[in-house]
Amino acid sequence: MAATKQLMDYAVDEAVDLFVLLKSADVRMAKNGKQYIALIFEDRSGEISGKYWDASEEDVKNYVSGQVVHLQGKRENYQTHPQIKIFHLRLAKPGEPTDPEMFIEQAPMDRAAMEDYINQTIFEITQPTWNRLVRKLLGEYQDQFFTFPAAKSNHHAFKGGLAFHTISILKLAHSVVKQYPDLNAPLLFAGAILHDLGKTIELSGPQSTTYTLAGNLIGHIVLIDGELVRACDPLKLDPQAEDVLLLRHMILSHHGLLEYGSPVRPALREADVLHQLDELDASIMMLDTVVDHTEPGEFSERVFALDGRRFYRPTTDAPEKKQD
Amino acid sequence: MAATKQLMDYAVDEAVDLFVLLKSADVRMAKNGKQYIALIFEDRSGEISGKYWDASEEDVKNYVSGQVVHLQGKRENYQTHPQIKIFHLRLAKPGEPTDPEMFIEQAPMDRAAMEDYINQTIFEITQPTWNRLVRKLLGEYQDQFFTFPAAKSNHHAFKGGLAFHTISILKLAHSVVKQYPDLNAPLLFAGAILHDLGKTIELSGPQSTTYTLAGNLIGHIVLIDGELVRACDPLKLDPQAEDVLLLRHMILSHHGLLEYGSPVRPALREADVLHQLDELDASIMMLDTVVDHTEPGEFSERVFALDGRRFYRPTTDAPEKKQD
Amino acid sequence: MAATKQLMDYAVDEAVDLFVLLKSADVRMAKNGKQYIALIFEDRSGEISGKYWDASEEDVKNYVSGQVVHLQGKRENYQTHPQIKIFHLRLAKPGEPTDPEMFIEQAPMDRAAMEDYINQTIFEITQPTWNRLVRKLLGEYQDQFFTFPAAKSNHHAFKGGLAFHTISILKLAHSVVKQYPDLNAPLLFAGAILHDLGKTIELSGPQSTTYTLAGNLIGHIVLIDGELVRACDPLKLDPQAEDVLLLRHMILSHHGLLEYGSPVRPALREADVLHQLDELDASIMMLDTVVDHTEPGEFSERVFALDGRRFYRPTTDAPEKKQD
Amino acid sequence: MAATKQLMDYAVDEAVDLFVLLKSADVRMAKNGKQYIALIFEDRSGEISGKYWDASEEDVKNYVSGQVVHLQGKRENYQTHPQIKIFHLRLAKPGEPTDPEMFIEQAPMDRAAMEDYINQTIFEITQPTWNRLVRKLLGEYQDQFFTFPAAKSNHHAFKGGLAFHTISILKLAHSVVKQYPDLNAPLLFAGAILHDLGKTIELSGPQSTTYTLAGNLIGHIVLIDGELVRACDPLKLDPQAEDVLLLRHMILSHHGLLEYGSPVRPALREADVLHQLDELDASIMMLDTVVDHTEPGEFSERVFALDGRRFYRPTTDAPEKKQD
Amino acid sequence: MAATKQLMDYAVDEAVDLFVLLKSADVRMAKNGKQYIALIFEDRSGEISGKYWDASEEDVKNYVSGQVVHLQGKRENYQTHPQIKIFHLRLAKPGEPTDPEMFIEQAPMDRAAMEDYINQTIFEITQPTWNRLVRKLLGEYQDQFFTFPAAKSNHHAFKGGLAFHTISILKLAHSVVKQYPDLNAPLLFAGAILHDLGKTIELSGPQSTTYTLAGNLIGHIVLIDGELVRACDPLKLDPQAEDVLLLRHMILSHHGLLEYGSPVRPALREADVLHQLDELDASIMMLDTVVDHTEPGEFSERVFALDGRRFYRPTTDAPEKKQD
Amino acid sequence: MAATKQLMDYAVDEAVDLFVLLKSADVRMAKNGKQYIALIFEDRSGEISGKYWDASEEDVKNYVSGQVVHLQGKRENYQTHPQIKIFHLRLAKPGEPTDPEMFIEQAPMDRAAMEDYINQTIFEITQPTWNRLVRKLLGEYQDQFFTFPAAKSNHHAFKGGLAFHTISILKLAHSVVKQYPDLNAPLLFAGAILHDLGKTIELSGPQSTTYTLAGNLIGHIVLIDGELVRACDPLKLDPQAEDVLLLRHMILSHHGLLEYGSPVRPALREADVLHQLDELDASIMMLDTVVDHTEPGEFSERVFALDGRRFYRPTTDAPEKKQD
Repeated sequence: MAATKQLMDYAVDEAVDLFVLLKSADVRMAKNGKQYIALIFEDRSGEISGKYWDASEEDVKNYVSGQVVHLQGKRENYQTHPQIKIFHLRLAKPGEPTDPEMFIEQAPMDRAAMEDYINQTIFEITQPTWNRLVRKLLGEYQDQFFTFPAAKSNHHAFKGGLAFHTISILKLAHSVVKQYPDLNAPLLFAGAILHDLGKTIELSGPQSTTYTLAGNLIGHIVLIDGELVRACDPLKLDPQAEDVLLLRHMILSHHGLLEYGSPVRPALREADVLHQLDELDASIMMLDTVVDHTEPGEFSERVFALDGRRFYRPTTDAPEKKQD
Repeated sequence: MAATKQLMDYAVDEAVDLFVLLKSADVRMAKNGKQYIALIFEDRSGEISGKYWDASEEDVKNYVSGQVVHLQGKRENYQTHPQIKIFHLRLAKPGEPTDPEMFIEQAPMDRAAMEDYINQTIFEITQPTWNRLVRKLLGEYQDQFFTFPAAKSNHHAFKGGLAFHTISILKLAHSVVKQYPDLNAPLLFAGAILHDLGKTIELSGPQSTTYTLAGNLIGHIVLIDGELVRACDPLKLDPQAEDVLLLRHMILSHHGLLEYGSPVRPALREADVLHQLDELDASIMMLDTVVDHTEPGEFSERVFALDGRRFYRPTTDAPEKKQD
Repeated sequence: MAATKQLMDYAVDEAVDLFVLLKSADVRMAKNGKQYIALIFEDRSGEISGKYWDASEEDVKNYVSGQVVHLQGKRENYQTHPQIKIFHLRLAKPGEPTDPEMFIEQAPMDRAAMEDYINQTIFEITQPTWNRLVRKLLGEYQDQFFTFPAAKSNHHAFKGGLAFHTISILKLAHSVVKQYPDLNAPLLFAGAILHDLGKTIELSGPQSTTYTLAGNLIGHIVLIDGELVRACDPLKLDPQAEDVLLLRHMILSHHGLLEYGSPVRPALREADVLHQLDELDASIMMLDTVVDHTEPGEFSERVFALDGRRFYRPTTDAPEKKQD
Repeated sequence: MAATKQLMDYAVDEAVDLFVLLKSADVRMAKNGKQYIALIFEDRSGEISGKYWDASEEDVKNYVSGQVVHLQGKRENYQTHPQIKIFHLRLAKPGEPTDPEMFIEQAPMDRAAMEDYINQTIFEITQPTWNRLVRKLLGEYQDQFFTFPAAKSNHHAFKGGLAFHTISILKLAHSVVKQYPDLNAPLLFAGAILHDLGKTIELSGPQSTTYTLAGNLIGHIVLIDGELVRACDPLKLDPQAEDVLLLRHMILSHHGLLEYGSPVRPALREADVLHQLDELDASIMMLDTVVDHTEPGEFSERVFALDGRRFYRPTTDAPEKKQD
Repeated sequence: MAATKQLMDYAVDEAVDLFVLLKSADVRMAKNGKQYIALIFEDRSGEISGKYWDASEEDVKNYVSGQVVHLQGKRENYQTHPQIKIFHLRLAKPGEPTDPEMFIEQAPMDRAAMEDYINQTIFEITQPTWNRLVRKLLGEYQDQFFTFPAAKSNHHAFKGGLAFHTISILKLAHSVVKQYPDLNAPLLFAGAILHDLGKTIELSGPQSTTYTLAGNLIGHIVLIDGELVRACDPLKLDPQAEDVLLLRHMILSHHGLLEYGSPVRPALREADVLHQLDELDASIMMLDTVVDHTEPGEFSERVFALDGRRFYRPTTDAPEKKQD
Repeated sequence: MAATKQLMDYAVDEAVDLFVLLKSADVRMAKNGKQYIALIFEDRSGEISGKYWDASEEDVKNYVSGQVVHLQGKRENYQTHPQIKIFHLRLAKPGEPTDPEMFIEQAPMDRAAMEDYINQTIFEITQPTWNRLVRKLLGEYQDQFFTFPAAKSNHHAFKGGLAFHTISILKLAHSVVKQYPDLNAPLLFAGAILHDLGKTIELSGPQSTTYTLAGNLIGHIVLIDGELVRACDPLKLDPQAEDVLLLRHMILSHHGLLEYGSPVRPALREADVLHQLDELDASIMMLDTVVDHTEPGEFSERVFALDGRRFYRPTTDAPEKKQD
């Protein structure tokens, strides 16, 4: 599929003609009283929105989230937001690409490689309590861990994003423990692996991701703490022993501030580092996307998740990077 | 003991002569290089500080927290703080009062009455999941629940304070559900009973109360959530079933704001009410103490736990109340 | 009227056919340049909005606030907001219901009962200065007090809402003074009755409520303080005598924080309690409405007046409550 | 007295020998258990503190606030705070200066001149309601207005400071209305004269100034609003007429922000200007004092009332100013 | 042109017929899928918006920013915002007014008078370093200084606004140094002249003003500091000499708070005064515009740049001012 | 000197006997009126305070900052702060260690190695403008860069700390650009090298470090921007060319938030990363010191520069680390 033109490859005003997935489809009423469908198109290159005007009842039934469609139109900019002006839309027919999986954004590392990396790191968790708890919890949520996104939107909101984000933090953590040898590497690695595992309970899954009731009422931080405490009984561990408390604290404090949902602020060197590495990876991932979607010499739209800042893309890119 | 004069009964400049408990004793160095002991005296009427100057090594060994002493001195005010100027101090001798228990501040309701009240309320928790979880957790922490204070300092910092504070909230809750019948009474009662139960893990016990490592690294809110999740297995409950989630949410959100340590803000009517009743009882308890310690016609010192406000005690007290 | 179906009784997608009041009618321009009327329909069950498209000049003249209309349409949800899709609209004719009063939301307690309750409570204000000031001010604003809403929107925004909200606080206050006998009941009751009386000057009246110039430039808190000071002269009271100051402080501090418009923070035990009971009643009233308008198993829209939180309505309601 | 050396004229380490007033005298206990008196000395040049060690009971009786004393000692700096090391202290004897009035800081404009300026400005208040209200209220608080300080500490904390601060604002206001002719000069002048008049009720008087109970429970902003409303009856004015509301709003909003104690934010052009001129004059007065007390080439101590900032005094002063 | 009716002279519902400048023209898509042009019309009386519906490709090419057009329509209010309903629009023809300059809002003082005022003030900067730096920098940015606006929007957003705002501050400064003689007048004047000079680099110019890349990445405060340092070399000044540092500090701190973009808070008396005079002039300018655009007896829209406050225009204007 | 016992090697209550440097010596007055000297002792292991009671005038002359002394005493803890109780103190005599340099804390990397690392990195700055600006500015401040501390206190407050902190960030930056190849490595490296170079102007030097006047009035961020602009003239660069602006922005925004003194927030991907790496290195350095000074199983004192948090040192250290 590499040679084919994808959704994000079109320039402004270029004619668009390709198969894409309907990521979401909301029926709304226009100010003239007629209904239209607000669509988000997606393929592995990214996503972009478009409006399907004057939708009939049949259109509303056909064009729903999860369908692959054939789209003809024009790439435009609407008040700095990219969008597709739709000329023609129809469902993909048998014999054409109809498998949604082919169009879903995926982590840029395959699952086997990610499993390898995690398994290698677990060997480095030489403290037995932490090692056992990580194995036990990862065992229970194995499949979700390698397929869930890391968030509903913002950063790493793609299939496998949760494991990929975790691995990015682990890579940073490996550099950091080498540079600052006083840090307790096994604690940092164990905390990094578990810190967002609660998202497998907080979120509904890799596609059309929403928050579960448990996610809304409890939140991923406390959900995984509960599961960790619960795992202590079969492992014959005391949830209030010092080593268990240290690992629980790593997870509970990783948002850094009470205002961001951590019930305690980091009180361990490693907890503070985990929080910072988490933020570093998340913000670089967001910034890469933001800058990629900005024309050279322009400022991006305001990025809500980064305090509403706008980011500048210089007219010359990094020398190491081929122009995309 | 009612007829005897107690620590808080002395007026400024009055001579003091009585048995008291040493609640705490810190050895410090004066600016002239000599050591002194900063003491806090306590009996059931309250507590007050005093300084024992030019302490010998023997004094330092004798006058430690938990000892009953005979105190002679004068009640003074040091920059609006009451204190005792010590004239003479000695350990209580055999035959004199030596049992610390006699001097410790206690909840103004005895344990049997508190147990009765709690048991009665549990009958009103007609929803089976909540009833079973309350019984199970209260069963595990029964003794601590009825003897621990509700806090290290500030409000209800006395023996039995945790249960007494819980019961005060339950009484308010009974009035409120009668006035607003849409509220789910069993949920509000179950949440009220469990909301601070984690303090039995967070705090060290009824005397010389300090924070445990679990208290410092995890905090009472998440500690009891962990225990609740853990209790689900023997009770064959799913910790992510809706009814369990509702009860967990009551506990987790009861501080009201993320900044105050709740990992989620109240998202249930009953959770919002529990938070408000908790604050109402805690603040009235603090205010009663503050106003009691202020002379009529004067403002109190600043109360740190109430935003640093100072409170005025009018020259005339409430008509219902006998002058104290 | 109990047997007839009312505005809030219709389910989503159900056909609507009934008489309702036009609570408000704003003429706006659609993005296609044609005018439409944004209507809010009201009856005693609540209110809901709808858009009347392509309005002629005659429609604009007919469909104005205060008219009773016959409405045919369909109950819909527009981005989680309930609304009516209008099929047919006409003014009520002679012989049909045309009295707006029949459609206006009212306090769930009749005026006579409310007057009784207030009069009973005044007997409990045994301190003569407070008793006389309450009688004097209530005498001057009697009619407004029993008919005005407590707010333009948010909570108790219905006819008689001001008195009903005051009575709800007084009921809570009665429970509280029984449980905490050190509180000065007459002061708390007098403060509760007067705390929002300034709204009779701040607001324009029970229907199509707006802010007056005095409301905008001075605010209800200071307006009633001014009236209280002015009432001192005929009553031969000194506005700076301690007992008058205590009552003024109750009123002035009842918003709790300077940021919320109180020129002083509560510095009396009773002032702090009044502030908390005011918040408790206001928030329960809002939450009852919010939860009532939410489907079981769903989260409400964000509630602006409650920090933008969303509230969950469990799939099972309180056992005491009949399913509505 | 101009030729005599005054308290603030001594350099660091210089021997001090002069008559001064005891502005305040607090008996405290040293960490060695002996009592000392924390004194503040004052004359018309300013004030400075000193400690009188090992005070006898007789010393405590003699050296009280309001006494004139003969002081011998040395000017020192204690952690950047100027202070006097006391060598010898005694009460002033008959025949020596004993009148406290001679040592109290005074406004740099005499009372007659201040009365003239105010009277001239009242003539410019051409709107009759505002003119009558200003005359009526100023008439009632005439003597206090010309003798009270503008604050307990911080700025204009000297005899006549209230009137002097008011006049400084009026002078600025005259320049401003000339430069911006759309401003309503009579409204600005009337608001300026009344804005702090409530301090005559909030504060106890020109010497040993403290807050009154009315000051603590109500505050000067609302106190003068109450008096203004009360003045409406004899003047046959309606306190809710537009012109009266405008003047009340000027007073009520002059602190600019709710957080600073104004129950409403400025909603009139003139109210916004009054707030800014009030801040401008107050901050220049504070800064003049702060910079005067700082050595050239040094930074001042942190100024609490100016956000804890430190201010630099350049090595060269303003060319217009003689070196002081 | 004085006698002709201008854009802001029309009352609501009045027919509009005049030549105006297109200040901006944004092509947007209506919710019915058709494009329209959102226009802002401008002449020397002010600006007002209007929508040109169903725009053809030719319309889009014709009606662009900078064109003079003949406009026929009606003055309306759309949700309290004034706007023009367009009946007919065409480009101005040869022989009709076509010079944009004739329609651009200008400072209410001509350039020659502004140059005079600035030159006079420079004579009063008697300190040689400051005098030379002011002359040098003003020399380099002379033309921009007298033609640029002071801001993209908000206050003084008109041709010559930068110099006019500077002069307004200087006039206030002259009054203030007369009233408070300890202030260093040359420093205050030099700081005032340079404080916003960086806007000549930050902004693109007097028409269709946008931010430059330097403006976005560096900001006017630091931009002019850089130019000042750079000017030191040819003038043989040390950028870290005390007198240069004082002037740099005046510029750098003039926003008053770090949150407002000043890298340091004012630490000089004169810097604090400059900050306050800057705010005073800016807010009066904004308020004059806001109140002018509000009907007597009404509140304005919320003013974003003044904390979202709404301002009241009394029914009677200032006596000095003729009704406009 | 490695084998000798150093200042930080003594346990609580252990007798101390060694040569140390007086880092600071403040003469203060005890509450009994006698003077004492508050000393800070330092050697390469760290620093600790002690009080020299009843100091004579000769003692005050002898024991001044910069002197090497022979100290005998006892290591104690005063309210969780470590201190030395002094038994005997005398100046070091000829023949004993008297060179302060031997006792000053130094970066844990020697100067030659640091120069090498910096030079290597400069080769990687392949963009010519950035390379030339870095060389030019580093050339001017070479000696200060390799000897100054990175701060007056908090982190890297030792000789060579500025270069060492810069190199730590560069090491992190090398890992990060490898992991995230879209980042512009030359820009990140150039920004990292220059970001704190202004500290060579802001601070007075490696010993007894204080803020200069330029540091206090301008701050290191803007100081180095000024020098960069000034360097453009000899290098024939335009300070407002895009590449120069990018580098200036890296420096100006590196504190991340306006509240922390950056006049602009990061608007480049690399600027955001630089800010985060700066914080990461600074906080790990602080945490290492804090945890090192805490006993296993204890919480540290509150760390002001880390939001007042207390940090826990687990009973078991990191496996990689030898027990210290």
